Amino acid sequence: MPTKPRPPSAERILFGQRLRAERHAQGLTLEDVAESADMNWSYIAQVERGTRNIGIDNMAALAAALDVSLALLLSKVDG
Amino acid sequence: MPTKPRPPSAERILFGQRLRAERHAQGLTLEDVAESADMNWSYIAQVERGTRNIGIDNMAALAAALDVSLALLLSKVDG
Repeated sequence: MPTKPRPPSAERILFGQRLRAERHAQGLTLEDVAESADMNWSYIAQVERGTRNIGIDNMAALAAALDVSLALLLSKVDG
Repeated sequence: MPTKPRPPSAERILFGQRLRAERHAQGLTLEDVAESADMNWSYIAQVERGTRNIGIDNMAALAAALDVSLALLLSKVDG
């Protein structure tokens, strides 16, 4: 466990932006991804906005729902 | 929040392995990384073993402590 609270990381913001971009690129709604990933759509919306310190297992489930690698959703390349 | 518990993801295991490999490649101890990342070394050891569903902010802090990108620590390339 960390010894101090931290502000949201740049990576958290990046992940949310990349997740939303990839979802839009595939023409999927939050509800579509929520069903595939077996999560609530409102949780995914929060992740996209960067308001959740999402854990790696849920990150992996979202990447799988979009059929992309988790590394891709953390890369700074546009696309 | 997810609606069901999940088993540890392959990405969780990969991240731990890549973290340990990168730490060893740099000749750093758990204590070195713990000091840089401001975390307990025992927590980092658990992350390396894949027994923690680490959050993205802590993942980012560990990548920063090793001066590598988070995407690198989630890539499947050997290194």
